[in-house]
Amino acid sequence: MQPKSQIVNLPVYQPGKPTEEVKREFGLTEVIKLASNENPYGASPRIKDAVLSELENISIYPDGSAANLTTALSHHLGVNSKQIIFGCGSDEVIAMITRAFFVPGDETIMADQTFSVYKSNADIEGALSIEVPLKNGIHDLDAMLAAITERTKIVWVCNPNNPTGTIVSENALVSFLDAVPSHVLVVLDEAYCEFVTDPSYTDGITLLSKYPNIVVLRTFSKIYGLASLRIGYGVGSAEVIKLINQVREPFNTSRLAQVAAIAALEDQAFVDQCRTLNAQGIVYLQAEFDRIGLSYLPAHGNFIMVDVRKPSGDIFQALLRKGIIIRAGHQRYPSYIRVSVGTPEQNKVFIQSLEEVLHQISAQV
Amino acid sequence: MQPKSQIVNLPVYQPGKPTEEVKREFGLTEVIKLASNENPYGASPRIKDAVLSELENISIYPDGSAANLTTALSHHLGVNSKQIIFGCGSDEVIAMITRAFFVPGDETIMADQTFSVYKSNADIEGALSIEVPLKNGIHDLDAMLAAITERTKIVWVCNPNNPTGTIVSENALVSFLDAVPSHVLVVLDEAYCEFVTDPSYTDGITLLSKYPNIVVLRTFSKIYGLASLRIGYGVGSAEVIKLINQVREPFNTSRLAQVAAIAALEDQAFVDQCRTLNAQGIVYLQAEFDRIGLSYLPAHGNFIMVDVRKPSGDIFQALLRKGIIIRAGHQRYPSYIRVSVGTPEQNKVFIQSLEEVLHQISAQV
Repeated sequence: MQPKSQIVNLPVYQPGKPTEEVKREFGLTEVIKLASNENPYGASPRIKDAVLSELENISIYPDGSAANLTTALSHHLGVNSKQIIFGCGSDEVIAMITRAFFVPGDETIMADQTFSVYKSNADIEGALSIEVPLKNGIHDLDAMLAAITERTKIVWVCNPNNPTGTIVSENALVSFLDAVPSHVLVVLDEAYCEFVTDPSYTDGITLLSKYPNIVVLRTFSKIYGLASLRIGYGVGSAEVIKLINQVREPFNTSRLAQVAAIAALEDQAFVDQCRTLNAQGIVYLQAEFDRIGLSYLPAHGNFIMVDVRKPSGDIFQALLRKGIIIRAGHQRYPSYIRVSVGTPEQNKVFIQSLEEVLHQISAQV
Repeated sequence: MQPKSQIVNLPVYQPGKPTEEVKREFGLTEVIKLASNENPYGASPRIKDAVLSELENISIYPDGSAANLTTALSHHLGVNSKQIIFGCGSDEVIAMITRAFFVPGDETIMADQTFSVYKSNADIEGALSIEVPLKNGIHDLDAMLAAITERTKIVWVCNPNNPTGTIVSENALVSFLDAVPSHVLVVLDEAYCEFVTDPSYTDGITLLSKYPNIVVLRTFSKIYGLASLRIGYGVGSAEVIKLINQVREPFNTSRLAQVAAIAALEDQAFVDQCRTLNAQGIVYLQAEFDRIGLSYLPAHGNFIMVDVRKPSGDIFQALLRKGIIIRAGHQRYPSYIRVSVGTPEQNKVFIQSLEEVLHQISAQV
């Protein structure tokens, strides 16, 4: 049996450590997970009823086209329903885009520290990933533009960027889009856009009518709090969405995810509240980092990259023993950890634990 | 923007018509859907509690490796946990297998009337599908063996076959496996195996230790009644499963699907009851077809292909107007419809409606 040669040695995705595993491993009863940028406030309370009543149809296949959800979302976004495609998380939309577009030898451009799923999918399809260094933690759109060749099929712009939390401004994005050749697809991954409060930010949906070569990725896993259910989406021109849909499996999203997403869209008050609480959490964490004397990247999502000035793996392990799970091991930022914004209580425990850990490690040296 | 050339004109999968759509279209209040081989008895009542309590974790990512479900299933099947991979339905496992193994120019062998998702995924990957005619509705394993070349990567055997409902016997399957070269992967799609009562049938799991080039596909969508939740799996040698896992998206199954599948496995009494009721339904439907004078293929899943001796699309439309949804339009069986086995009440209404429809159409001619 002969697999595709390029898939044999692909690195395996490293998810945030699950709470239960950490409890078992360290004999802890309380664990705080700030590792996967989940919503610490859960999801809209309306969702439970929607899911409960849909359980009646548990044995019935979902509507593969997710027609009701598509209608609800097209109204919410102000786009045509033919411009939307759903996936089992936006991860699956990324996979579908690569599967629909890449042939071996194609080139694709992304930041050198960004969401790893772009490169893993490009690798699977045999496309060459050109990784352009971030500049001060921010996508260097000029350098990305300069990297475009005749073989370039897709440029990925994660905005806000995961894991740095940085954004590209509207001006920078528009100048970039004006210069990108029309044969190149630009994927704007906006998984965290609903958290952004900075006025210099623009949302890709507003740019769609001008740039038919954009696909915007969004998800219900972050501010909407539906990570467990696996539902995300892509928005683009009807022509591009139709092409991506050619490789969609017939029933790729569940009934429960579809009804939960509709209920989530209907509760924008919950979204507004989470955005406000998240912004307060960022202010708190930044003030605490300032007090401790740690520098950090400007955070626009629901997470912050902070420079702990030690090998991040050591801090990760020390925090784990205290029952705090964060993310470390970012190749280009070896002394940074990424921490999700939690509830005020969780943020406070995290800061206390971080100070203790930094103190311990300094004392050991 | 330049997609892969082979995906542009792929046919779109035609799902069974949804009940709500038929109600709207024909102004009906009662509609019986016997089009998607769903479980008419729903799912185990234990599942509701499992799902309800998991809703607490709605905002938390699932365990991507589905560790608890893998453990439960490995005990149930008597295989090692490294031999199992889960997908968003077995559809996704099919997609992952093709994405991990095919390069353009590879060949793959399947029956000329079988589950369409094998060919659609081979098309996406640029592999050439060799479609071997069924013999009396049954996989012609000798002809499939003869079709193997050096370029053959995968042979698909759907057992019971969808849509014909036929099985290959243990003897035929073992002779075939003994002769297949070891470089060829044999995918045994056993989505309907739990319904089979025929003693000549064997289950691919029992053959795994002898044939490391088998992958068995199973699903929770059929007898377990979890079609809405999207969870299926593949079982094979640890080496092959590891390769398929290389192209799995990190969080491809939901928390609710994982806990529901565990609860479903724990209620084998429900499975046994569904198998018995389904077998009774087949006996009833076959007796009625005999009475009406219609021939049918031997049914081993939870559906029957019956020859209505008219263009099946006409019968499909006429039944639809009476609120009965079945499947028609099988390329190699233009005068056959495929009907799922329903509850005794549904089966009775179906038979009455079919007789009326056949009578009307005969009268018109």
